[in-house]
Amino acid sequence: MRVVIIGAVACGTKTACRLKRLRPDAEIILIDKDEYISYGGCGMPYYLTGDVSHIDELRRTTFYVLRDERFFQDIKGITTLTKTLVEEIDRKKKVVKVRYLENGKTEEISYDKLVIATGSTPKIPPIPGVDLDGVFTLSNLHDAIKIKERLVNKTVENPLVIGAGFIGLEVVEAFGESWEIPVTLVEYFPQVLPRLIDPFMSRIVEHHLKTKGVKVVLNARVKEIVGKNGKVVGVKTEDKFYPADLVLLATGVNPNTELAKKAGLFVSSTTGGIVVNERMQTSDPDIYAGGDCVEIKHLVTGKGVVLPMGSLANRQGRVIATNIAGGNALFKGTVGSFILKCFDMAIGGCGLSLELARAEGFKDATYALNIQHERAHFFSTGCSYYSLIFDKRTTKVLGFQTIGPFTDGTLARVHAISSILPLKPTIEDVISLELPYSPPFNTALDPIHNTAHIAENIIYERFKLISWDSVIERLRKKDESMLIVDVRTPNEVRDITQRYPNWINIPYQSARTEIKSLPKDKDLIIVCSVGARAYEVARWLFAEGYKNVYVPLGGIVLPKSWGEEL
Amino acid sequence: MRVVIIGAVACGTKTACRLKRLRPDAEIILIDKDEYISYGGCGMPYYLTGDVSHIDELRRTTFYVLRDERFFQDIKGITTLTKTLVEEIDRKKKVVKVRYLENGKTEEISYDKLVIATGSTPKIPPIPGVDLDGVFTLSNLHDAIKIKERLVNKTVENPLVIGAGFIGLEVVEAFGESWEIPVTLVEYFPQVLPRLIDPFMSRIVEHHLKTKGVKVVLNARVKEIVGKNGKVVGVKTEDKFYPADLVLLATGVNPNTELAKKAGLFVSSTTGGIVVNERMQTSDPDIYAGGDCVEIKHLVTGKGVVLPMGSLANRQGRVIATNIAGGNALFKGTVGSFILKCFDMAIGGCGLSLELARAEGFKDATYALNIQHERAHFFSTGCSYYSLIFDKRTTKVLGFQTIGPFTDGTLARVHAISSILPLKPTIEDVISLELPYSPPFNTALDPIHNTAHIAENIIYERFKLISWDSVIERLRKKDESMLIVDVRTPNEVRDITQRYPNWINIPYQSARTEIKSLPKDKDLIIVCSVGARAYEVARWLFAEGYKNVYVPLGGIVLPKSWGEEL
Repeated sequence: MRVVIIGAVACGTKTACRLKRLRPDAEIILIDKDEYISYGGCGMPYYLTGDVSHIDELRRTTFYVLRDERFFQDIKGITTLTKTLVEEIDRKKKVVKVRYLENGKTEEISYDKLVIATGSTPKIPPIPGVDLDGVFTLSNLHDAIKIKERLVNKTVENPLVIGAGFIGLEVVEAFGESWEIPVTLVEYFPQVLPRLIDPFMSRIVEHHLKTKGVKVVLNARVKEIVGKNGKVVGVKTEDKFYPADLVLLATGVNPNTELAKKAGLFVSSTTGGIVVNERMQTSDPDIYAGGDCVEIKHLVTGKGVVLPMGSLANRQGRVIATNIAGGNALFKGTVGSFILKCFDMAIGGCGLSLELARAEGFKDATYALNIQHERAHFFSTGCSYYSLIFDKRTTKVLGFQTIGPFTDGTLARVHAISSILPLKPTIEDVISLELPYSPPFNTALDPIHNTAHIAENIIYERFKLISWDSVIERLRKKDESMLIVDVRTPNEVRDITQRYPNWINIPYQSARTEIKSLPKDKDLIIVCSVGARAYEVARWLFAEGYKNVYVPLGGIVLPKSWGEEL
Repeated sequence: MRVVIIGAVACGTKTACRLKRLRPDAEIILIDKDEYISYGGCGMPYYLTGDVSHIDELRRTTFYVLRDERFFQDIKGITTLTKTLVEEIDRKKKVVKVRYLENGKTEEISYDKLVIATGSTPKIPPIPGVDLDGVFTLSNLHDAIKIKERLVNKTVENPLVIGAGFIGLEVVEAFGESWEIPVTLVEYFPQVLPRLIDPFMSRIVEHHLKTKGVKVVLNARVKEIVGKNGKVVGVKTEDKFYPADLVLLATGVNPNTELAKKAGLFVSSTTGGIVVNERMQTSDPDIYAGGDCVEIKHLVTGKGVVLPMGSLANRQGRVIATNIAGGNALFKGTVGSFILKCFDMAIGGCGLSLELARAEGFKDATYALNIQHERAHFFSTGCSYYSLIFDKRTTKVLGFQTIGPFTDGTLARVHAISSILPLKPTIEDVISLELPYSPPFNTALDPIHNTAHIAENIIYERFKLISWDSVIERLRKKDESMLIVDVRTPNEVRDITQRYPNWINIPYQSARTEIKSLPKDKDLIIVCSVGARAYEVARWLFAEGYKNVYVPLGGIVLPKSWGEEL
């Protein structure tokens, strides 16, 4: 059996190596147009930060052997053709037509099974100036090397990143933290990490970026990258000019599907990805595809998505190898789990954001937000934020978002939720999760549980919600129909009650009796530090017959973490 | 509705507080024989370490209010009777008979619903000397205060802990790490954390304890605690005497079920716990029970267990409150998830150990072991150990054990597996878990995936297993029927091949051809650092027609982590 694999980074090499272990007799031909193959692409931002000191660190095995052409050829027993372009797939003849880029020669290579793992290419915005010297993407090691060279040579003083997604945020950290270069981050959407997390979370990240010296520009449509003598000097948005001597385009990627299309394989018109079944077979059963170039099923919406993630590519490569070897492995889809480091923060999530959930037709989608120390206070590493997105009618969990200090605590919570999310759990299922507990690691009820408890209180309408945005707006308008009842201790409240006439302090400890004197004709907004005391006092007020009692999720800590001055 | 709750630590107070929030009109009477209530019992070891500086830190809310009788009475609106002993439950009259310990007076208190949350009492071994001055248990704040006093007064020079379970290991760390007192740990079973983890894992912990200066004594049956002038001076086992001026008994707990028994409620004769249904109702539907005193269902075996865990007690309290308030919440059982800090290590797990699985009748139970850095090498925090226990015939996962550096990485993996374990996943389900990935947090395929891959290779018998114990035994016996083929680089192997005549080095990089000269009449034991290269070379050997090819799980790192000198 001869298996030809097009593309040798994540999915392709994983397929090749596993297949060779399962079927040592298989002849495997691994083809890539680049000389760099089988590298840890997700590590590139850390080459820029300096955590990875040499590019070869992203190319070697855990036992320090370089994963180059020779490694695959001699050690793995896989025929490896680098700097070789596949120009066409002839499905009738079952051959791929290749061109050797070094000498221009062409050849036909026959296959019994073919694997398309052609990856993706960065989206280049259709604007002038993208070809200027100093404009980069970060999609392969060549890009990484070139950017690092400029950093090392100290020729970068004013970098600007377009796109506040994963790559954008990771690179901004490299510039800002490791090289101490003030960096500008420009994003088309009104938030960082658009579609991944919701504004009530993204604003926490934005504030963190600002405290780290990053200039965050949101809602900005870039019209032109401006050059002088062929070199980039800045970026023009609709209303402003931002000087820059290095511009990184991090505005997403497109799946590489030209070959598949030309060969007549089904390619999705909605997502642009190659259509595969759960066995990762394309519309031609002898041709498999995996990695950034395929469309996979989103397990919450049931719809197709293209999700360029190294972890998914590796898992898909494994499935393809098993199936070519005669087994039956399935890749059922994705819940879009992610985690990233952003300066001192870890940010993670899975499933749908609230915005996406509503756009997908979950009209009863809402969210619960929990803010707490991720472990017992005597081991605290700081404040963490947890949000469950759920359907209030069916109580099904739709998504999860979390932000915390840079520990594995964030990972732990995404690990738990993304493990069960494909099973369409309800909030009650999350409440019933058994999670291990010990004070150095968490709280007796894990932050996940506490978040689900808040969701349950929302489902049963045990309190009325109000957004901090509307509270702040009414506060600034000196809206007298609203009274903020702050139930923190006088010490915690400090002078805030002096700044706002409609902000009063009734300490939790004496609230049970003192609340009885509150006016019944005003909207009472109950606030405390993170919301637990406020919820309880709201319950007391309801029991006393009060109706217009509201609790903003996240307590006073939430707007503060957005950088709001109150 | 009047609800009487007996016991006010974890389950009892959780029931009371939640019920009051759900039903502000309910009259709740919370009774405890102690003056200290609602404290974080799991934090007691950290009071001894000094992480918790004052005992009240274990008694306060996150907003610094002491959770004493007054707090429950005045703020929560819950009638709270401390230093009050419930002597009898009269189910016919629906009253509890109480004795006020301060004045000896008795009273009958009627209830509509009753909650038994009487907790557990430390097991005291039936040996002489347990009453000596200096012999302690650690089951409540009084114990913690008394032990800490001795530590602070520097009267402890030679502490000894009996029992190497959770409490034992946590306290050993307090003595050893925080107070720098050499401590002896005596365990009846031949390993630490018996029944929780298996020897191939526990020996890693034992070695770590030893490097931290703890004297670990296993297989030791304590016959007597020896005193002089009423004070403890040591501990006698069957064959030895260990001097000690403080002895902590940490040999487990018994559920407190006397009241329940006397009232004629069903109490399990096998586990000793009060029998409850999934709603946490006892055999009397008006009486609920939860926490350390109840029998719950183990979701892997289907059998009853008593599991004294703060996290379970809290979850059960929540279920009881919901049900008394008129809802319908279920506590379906446990998979026995745990996590603990032990010096620089985190240890966690869930489900059954291999030993327990076999004892429970899973005759095809076996294990896969994976050793790897928990994240990308450029963010490494050290080596981690992961083991899945599974049924080789059905491929069902039965348990999980992990040891790693003291980060939340261990928590993350237990969070994931314990979230799905109640759903009876197969190894394939674990392989298919979607787990978020980024180099600062993990590897592209999470350590959980890699462990499941090893399990899959075991299920499909892609290699033959051999235990390190048998390899080491044959090595020491100079068994010439065995040849260890070390496929690490010459640099990694160093001089080990000179020490053992039947230990040879064929580097992985040249192994594909060089293995062809290996003898076919010997047992070939293929080893490398952690096993990945060895597995691959074993596959090559099988392809070359070799039969007697074995790979010991965990590579050379495993016996080294046990402290074996090779």
